[in-house]
Amino acid sequence: MRIDRLQRAAREAGLDALVAVSPENFFYATGAYILTQKLIRDRLAMAVIPASGEPTVIVCSIEESLTRAETPLRDVRTYVEFRESPVAALAAVLTEKGLDGQRVGIELRYLSMHYGDELRRAMPGTRFEDCGRVFHRVRAVKEPGEIELLARAARGVTGAIMAAFGEADPGDSERRVAAGILRRFLDEGLDEPFLVLGTGARSAQAHPIPSERYVLRDGDVLRVDGGGLYRGYYGDVARTVFVGRPDARRVDVFKRLAEVQRRVVERCTVGTPVRELYELCRASFAELGLPFHMPHIGHSMGVELHEEPMIQPLNDTPIEENMVLNIEPIAVVDGAGYHIEDLVLVTARGPQVLNRPALDDEPFFIA
Amino acid sequence: MRIDRLQRAAREAGLDALVAVSPENFFYATGAYILTQKLIRDRLAMAVIPASGEPTVIVCSIEESLTRAETPLRDVRTYVEFRESPVAALAAVLTEKGLDGQRVGIELRYLSMHYGDELRRAMPGTRFEDCGRVFHRVRAVKEPGEIELLARAARGVTGAIMAAFGEADPGDSERRVAAGILRRFLDEGLDEPFLVLGTGARSAQAHPIPSERYVLRDGDVLRVDGGGLYRGYYGDVARTVFVGRPDARRVDVFKRLAEVQRRVVERCTVGTPVRELYELCRASFAELGLPFHMPHIGHSMGVELHEEPMIQPLNDTPIEENMVLNIEPIAVVDGAGYHIEDLVLVTARGPQVLNRPALDDEPFFIA
Repeated sequence: MRIDRLQRAAREAGLDALVAVSPENFFYATGAYILTQKLIRDRLAMAVIPASGEPTVIVCSIEESLTRAETPLRDVRTYVEFRESPVAALAAVLTEKGLDGQRVGIELRYLSMHYGDELRRAMPGTRFEDCGRVFHRVRAVKEPGEIELLARAARGVTGAIMAAFGEADPGDSERRVAAGILRRFLDEGLDEPFLVLGTGARSAQAHPIPSERYVLRDGDVLRVDGGGLYRGYYGDVARTVFVGRPDARRVDVFKRLAEVQRRVVERCTVGTPVRELYELCRASFAELGLPFHMPHIGHSMGVELHEEPMIQPLNDTPIEENMVLNIEPIAVVDGAGYHIEDLVLVTARGPQVLNRPALDDEPFFIA
Repeated sequence: MRIDRLQRAAREAGLDALVAVSPENFFYATGAYILTQKLIRDRLAMAVIPASGEPTVIVCSIEESLTRAETPLRDVRTYVEFRESPVAALAAVLTEKGLDGQRVGIELRYLSMHYGDELRRAMPGTRFEDCGRVFHRVRAVKEPGEIELLARAARGVTGAIMAAFGEADPGDSERRVAAGILRRFLDEGLDEPFLVLGTGARSAQAHPIPSERYVLRDGDVLRVDGGGLYRGYYGDVARTVFVGRPDARRVDVFKRLAEVQRRVVERCTVGTPVRELYELCRASFAELGLPFHMPHIGHSMGVELHEEPMIQPLNDTPIEENMVLNIEPIAVVDGAGYHIEDLVLVTARGPQVLNRPALDDEPFFIA
C-alpha cells in the first residue's frame, strides 16, 4: 500500500521511477532497517520503484539475509562490496526495467557526486531528477501505525527526561544527568539515542555534547534536547529546567516562551500555511519581549529527524490532517538558552499534543 | 600541526585546497564536533584548507557559538539556513582565497549531487577533484593522542560487553542483554552507541537489531558487534558467546575462528601489504575448514568507523607504524554466526592488541 502511494506520487510528478538511496527512504519503501547504511556511507542500499510494476531492492551481499527477513518485497539483488560497484548494479536494474532514456527520480540530496557522476556516465541518455520532494510529500501525511509509533517515541523521550531530572541534584555533571536520561531511553526501547544538554552558559549553545567538566550550579538554566528511534520512528523533545532556587526573572522568560509555544501549537490546524506558524512565532516573541533568532521554529518528523514540512518562513505548504509537527521555540536571554519542544498531531478537530496531556508549563527545579 | 599535515598532503596531491564536508573530516580538521551534521544532512559544515595559508570554517549560524568554543581555527563564517545556500557561502570563500579556476579537492564521496551540481554551476572554471583519499592518507597514521583515545574506546567497549554477558541468563531477550551492554557503554563515556546482537539463527545475519521477540535459548550461539565514540574516536568490538551447555562442535568452530584471528593479528607488521592480511585470512579459513564469505576481514578506524586501510583483497597499501587495524573474521557454520573483532596497533616491534592483554580465546558461556 505504501508502495502504491509512492508509485502514484511518482506518476503525478511525471517520473518513470523512484530510486530510494537514503537510509530513511530505503526503510520507508522496504521496511528493512540496515544499520550500516548510516555508519558506512559507501555501502549503498537502494530501492528501485518503477511508476508501475514490481520494485527491486539492491543491497550489499553482507546485508542480504537481514533484508530478506525484513522486507515484504520479493525482488532482492546484491552486489559484492569492493569487487562490484553498487551504481553498476543500479544501472543494470534500471536498464532491465526499460528505464534507460527515461525520467528517473533519484535522491540528488543524498547520492554523492562520486556515485552520481558514475551513474550519469553509465546512463548518459537518462534524465536523473531529484525525487526527494516526492518522498517528502508521501511521508508528510502519516499512516495510523506511524502516528502510534511517533506518539510512543515522544512519550518515551519526555518521560525519560523528566524522570532523570527528578533524580538529578545540583553538583551533578552534565554527563551524569545525561547518563540518567540515556539509561531511560534504553528502557523505553529507543535506538540510536541522541542528546544535547548544556548547563549555565552552555545552555545557549545550539548542540552542546554533555560533558564531565561542567556541573549544575545554583541558578543555572539547564537545557536538554534529545531523543531516538522507536522501531524506526523518531522521538525528539526539548526541555528547559532550573537548578537551585527560583530566579524570578528567568522563570518569567521561561513562562513567556511557554506562552509562545502554546499560541503556535493552537495554530496547527488543517489548511494553515506552514509559514504562518513561523510568522506567529516571530510576532509572539516580539510581543512578549523575547529576542528572535531562529531560521526555523520546528519541523515534521518520522523516519527522519527533520522532515517536511519544515516550519520556516519560505514554506507555503498548507498543513494537512495527520501531519505531525514538532513545535520548538528557542530563546537566548542574558546568556542562557531556553527551549521547549513537543510533538503535535494535526487532526480534523484541531491540534493534539501527543507527548503530554496539556501544555501546562510550570517550571521544573532541580534542587 | 594537523592542519600542517593536511596542507602538506594537499600539496603532494597537487591540490590547491582541501574542502572537508563530511562530519569526520570536519571534526578531524577543526576539532569541532557538530552533532547535527550527522542528523541533518542538508545543514553543511565545511572547512576550507588552502594548500598554504589560513583555513576557514563555514557553519550554519545556529552552530556558530559551539564551533567557536571548540575549534582553535579563528576564521569562522556562517550562513543562515533556508535563506542562504551553504554552497554559495563556500563559493564565496573559495573565490576570496583566489581558488577560482584552481584545483580544489572536495569530498566527492560525501557531497551530494544537489550541492555538487550547484557548486559546479557557481564555479564552472574550477576543477573539483576528490580529496577523500588525501584525508584518508593523513588520518591512517594515528597521533599518540588519537591512539590513547582509540585504546580507551576499545577497552571500554570490550569491558562493557563482557560484564553484561556475565550478568545475562538463558531466557533473557536480545534487547535485555543489549540494554545491559548499552548501559555500560554510557558508564564508559561512549557517545552515539551502536550495537548489533543476534542469538540463534539471527547470529548469522550481518546486522540484527536486538529484539524483544528473540530470547537466549540453550545451545544458541550469541553474536554481538558494537561500540561508540569516545571523545570523537570509535571503539568497535565483536564477541561470540554460547548459551547454556557446551556443544563441542560449536566450541570447536569458535576455536578455529580464534586461531585464524591470532594468525592475522601476528601478520600486522610494518611494510606488509594490507591485502596479504586478507589472503592469509582466506587461506587460514580454508586450512581450518571454515567457509569464507567476507568482502573484507577488517578495517582501520578513528574518527570514522571504517577508515583506510580497509583490509580487502584489492588493497596494496603497505602497513605503517601507528596504524590501527580492527581484525574481525566472521564465519557462518550450520546457520550460526561466529565473529571476533579486536583492535591492533602496529608498532615497530610488532602488533599490539589494544583492548585485551592477550588473544586467549577461551569460549564464554551464559548459563
